Amino acid sequence: MKIGILGTGMVGETLGTAMVAKGHEVKMGSRSAQNEKAKSWVIQNGQYASQGTFADAAQFGEVIFSCTKGEHALEALNLADKINLDAKILVDVSNPLDFSTGMPPTLFLVNDTSLGETIQNSFPETKVVKALNTLTCSLMVDPNKIANGNHNLFICGNNKEAKQKIKDILNENFNWKKENIIDLGDITNSRGTEQLLPIWIRLMGALGTADFNFKVVSN
Amino acid sequence: MKIGILGTGMVGETLGTAMVAKGHEVKMGSRSAQNEKAKSWVIQNGQYASQGTFADAAQFGEVIFSCTKGEHALEALNLADKINLDAKILVDVSNPLDFSTGMPPTLFLVNDTSLGETIQNSFPETKVVKALNTLTCSLMVDPNKIANGNHNLFICGNNKEAKQKIKDILNENFNWKKENIIDLGDITNSRGTEQLLPIWIRLMGALGTADFNFKVVSN
Repeated sequence: MKIGILGTGMVGETLGTAMVAKGHEVKMGSRSAQNEKAKSWVIQNGQYASQGTFADAAQFGEVIFSCTKGEHALEALNLADKINLDAKILVDVSNPLDFSTGMPPTLFLVNDTSLGETIQNSFPETKVVKALNTLTCSLMVDPNKIANGNHNLFICGNNKEAKQKIKDILNENFNWKKENIIDLGDITNSRGTEQLLPIWIRLMGALGTADFNFKVVSN
Repeated sequence: MKIGILGTGMVGETLGTAMVAKGHEVKMGSRSAQNEKAKSWVIQNGQYASQGTFADAAQFGEVIFSCTKGEHALEALNLADKINLDAKILVDVSNPLDFSTGMPPTLFLVNDTSLGETIQNSFPETKVVKALNTLTCSLMVDPNKIANGNHNLFICGNNKEAKQKIKDILNENFNWKKENIIDLGDITNSRGTEQLLPIWIRLMGALGTADFNFKVVSN
């Protein structure tokens, strides 16, 4: 499968590397087609890895992962260009974190809105799936790293087939057990998953590690 | 121990009943000293149960549980009267849920503030401990009802001894294992635990039950 990654940070790099390792072709996009971080990622990842602009990566990908910092997400998607995103599945991994007043961050879209739904509203022809935004990137691609993989991922989005396809990708490539992926419903449920970040960040401080996740337990 | 309960809803009733069952004296407070719901609770719970105004319950309690709806919490505490709350431990169980635009609710204090810290700021001499606000009331008093009690409670507050005392109360009366109670730090961490409600409410819908909780898993 052809995958577009928007963003050259740790999240984009981790997802891109894991997808290349599974035999997918991955193009990492950034503001500049010559981005140095993307360049060294391509060198490390061989023939299935390539780089380009946000628009190049979006055009290339059958499925696109939005992995920029939340504050740059809409700008990056606008640079990616609506025509390259229409009718495609866009996985929004970013969070609307605002570090402008220091740690812990606040959220710049919150409560009666969210970044996920703002992206969906801005790109109505794109099938936006909010996923993977509630845990550290090493666990996104390797849930078995902790607790035998028995913990939860929350996803939401307006398009059922798109969510099913992302569940399949997460299952087949990263070993997420399907029963551990909880579908919350439409894209407005991003309000729920993005507002997990405030306690996630505090738990990271209290536990002294980012290698943890939430498991929903019941009878 | 003498316990004051502010509020006659399901949360106050459940906590009051469980504390009476453990041999504590509990006074349930409401706007009126003759509240009908409190009256029937007293009849059901026998000699250790009593009722009164918010001020009566606050004066009575060595430890006070704030269990009104979030929107009434500050008003109830003002009626309880600062003089009855000073130097005491107040456990804030309430959440700033705003149902005015329907389901799911938003939060009326959120992001760069919270109900827990607003209460602490309004009653600076009171030792406010935010706790128990992230799960349904039957699990507050009986965590063993699901997953052998192996799931988490998040607490925060500015006063370490007060938090330790609440941990002891939760452990001795409700069988919360101490290692499952995660102390997030000072009262501003209420921002984290209150912002769990948006996903909690959505999970209740997705799972079809309120009898679930979060377990933080790591290695």
